[in-house]
Amino acid sequence: MSLTSSEQYAQHQYWMQQAIVLAQQGQYSTRPNPNVGCVIVKDGKVVGTGFHPKAGQPHAEVFALREAGQLAKGATAYVTLEPCAHYGRTPPCAKGLVEAGVVKVVVACSDPNPLVAGKGVQILKDAGIEVELGVCEAEAEALNKGFLKAMATGMPYVRLKVASSLDGRTAMASGESKWITGSEARQDVQHWRAISGAVVTGIETILADDPQLNVRQLVDVNMDHIVQPQRVILDRQGRLPLDAQILKQPETVMVMGPFRQELAQLGVVQLEIQSLADLLKTLKDFQIYDVMVEAGVTLSSAFLQENLIDEIISYIAPTFLGQSARAMFNANFEQMSQQLRFKLEDVIQLGQDIRLRLTPLQESV
Amino acid sequence: MSLTSSEQYAQHQYWMQQAIVLAQQGQYSTRPNPNVGCVIVKDGKVVGTGFHPKAGQPHAEVFALREAGQLAKGATAYVTLEPCAHYGRTPPCAKGLVEAGVVKVVVACSDPNPLVAGKGVQILKDAGIEVELGVCEAEAEALNKGFLKAMATGMPYVRLKVASSLDGRTAMASGESKWITGSEARQDVQHWRAISGAVVTGIETILADDPQLNVRQLVDVNMDHIVQPQRVILDRQGRLPLDAQILKQPETVMVMGPFRQELAQLGVVQLEIQSLADLLKTLKDFQIYDVMVEAGVTLSSAFLQENLIDEIISYIAPTFLGQSARAMFNANFEQMSQQLRFKLEDVIQLGQDIRLRLTPLQESV
Repeated sequence: MSLTSSEQYAQHQYWMQQAIVLAQQGQYSTRPNPNVGCVIVKDGKVVGTGFHPKAGQPHAEVFALREAGQLAKGATAYVTLEPCAHYGRTPPCAKGLVEAGVVKVVVACSDPNPLVAGKGVQILKDAGIEVELGVCEAEAEALNKGFLKAMATGMPYVRLKVASSLDGRTAMASGESKWITGSEARQDVQHWRAISGAVVTGIETILADDPQLNVRQLVDVNMDHIVQPQRVILDRQGRLPLDAQILKQPETVMVMGPFRQELAQLGVVQLEIQSLADLLKTLKDFQIYDVMVEAGVTLSSAFLQENLIDEIISYIAPTFLGQSARAMFNANFEQMSQQLRFKLEDVIQLGQDIRLRLTPLQESV
Repeated sequence: MSLTSSEQYAQHQYWMQQAIVLAQQGQYSTRPNPNVGCVIVKDGKVVGTGFHPKAGQPHAEVFALREAGQLAKGATAYVTLEPCAHYGRTPPCAKGLVEAGVVKVVVACSDPNPLVAGKGVQILKDAGIEVELGVCEAEAEALNKGFLKAMATGMPYVRLKVASSLDGRTAMASGESKWITGSEARQDVQHWRAISGAVVTGIETILADDPQLNVRQLVDVNMDHIVQPQRVILDRQGRLPLDAQILKQPETVMVMGPFRQELAQLGVVQLEIQSLADLLKTLKDFQIYDVMVEAGVTLSSAFLQENLIDEIISYIAPTFLGQSARAMFNANFEQMSQQLRFKLEDVIQLGQDIRLRLTPLQESV
């Protein structure tokens, strides 16, 4: 029985979807490594599956090949990301696939990491293995937005969280803001923090709300397995109080401001940065590829106006706070032509609130 | 074969849904009459269907009974609204059902019109016909929100349209506002106008935008059949220019302001009103039961603050206009406890914009 090419492509998509679901199991725990899933199929049956669970542990292909054992000979491997070609903490997966005797490898997206970048595919091809690239590419890329952007451009993928009333207000003039959005929206924020390498905020937010900005609860997830994001505070004048809640776990706090001995003693990483772009580049050098900005209007607006945002996670509550409440975006535009317009990716209801995901109409710098 | 009561109820819902779909066919044309649909079923088969198409034409039951003819004897009639009991332009439908020999009438919602209000059901019961009330009641009520509210309370059902940016702005400081939302959202507005007896605006909107506020296009609808809404202008100082676009069809314009001879000559209805509540009561007396407010921030905010809004139709475009652009709600609240909070009914995507439907958390007065 021979399949038409479109039947074959549909089969490839079917198995790759399973590899993507596997990869997602590592979404809160693999950082700074990417999420990868692998499915090995022989004679229409799955003989091995795997996903990368955590940096320092084996790659997805290793788990899948182990499970397949001798059955890998003559099988097809589905991998969500190009198999690695370099000796890191583990031997290169491309070599592993060759040695196991798979005859075909289907890859969702190639790895822009200069240590891989086509070399993984080349190893497979050199060994006479048939390689098909690009199956379910968009879904697979969505697994690793930060990693892929950072490898390709040297800058992390930046999400801006905003929460506002229907009339675009984030707090009363007094600063009172608890709670504009409801518990479902606040729970959703935990997911975005948990897939981020860092949550960035400003010193004003720390002084006003004294938040922890860590991940406290995720539905159906064992909290022991998640990698907590770094909490990054922009504090140019060195005003962070030593009794701030955020300093309860000083090992995951980074302060961007003048050096302070008392923070160094707590083990807080301290850096001076010149600009927001500089900050992002620095975070990338710390292998932080997904950045979430949760800040007040001044810092959020600056990120927006400097075109440093890749995605806005916007929560809107069905309430009016009035014109004396705080605006969510502090630019002063005179003409419609100056507006900052985004592409609407999707909208969902979360309890009594809604969440929009937006991306820039032009690619950010 | 006998049915359990839950099987029977499911059957009733099935046929009533069909009657509701029929009723909707009159949504743009029956005003000031309600939308009503009727299905007559005998031995599990539809023998007659009808809906009320237009004031002055027969009621839904008349069309359905005509089609059923002798087959109506012993049949069950499904009607979305309690059959009328009064002699108006047509004889009472309750009597018609009795004379046709139906043995059972299933009614979705009762008619609060004092001329009907239970009398229709009583006529049926007196004739020995079994009557079941309340099947698909909520969906049937949704067909006639304005009619039902007006009959029950003496006030029309008021929808407020707002269109804003993500940061809650309706226009630049200069007034420039074309176009914040896209064509799909603007097309959607046409539907809400077309189900309204009146579109209410303020003189400032007329002077700034010179709009027509009529229904120009509805997808898959013959425009000849729709009843155009009245366009109502609040103009306390008598500033409406005689060359305003809206006066191109003066017969559907109402001006709330000081009497002007030149408007009277055009056939424009003119009234002086004291308050917005007064305005709404007056419109109800003109048999206008669904009112849509499409106005600037001052008038819209006044309707909101006086709790006169039953539903907000809120369009949001994925754009930031900045803090010097015009606010969408001009109240000055100092504390969160003063906020005007609504219940989110639903949210949909319309092109690149979203539409929220909101209702007051407490019943409006």
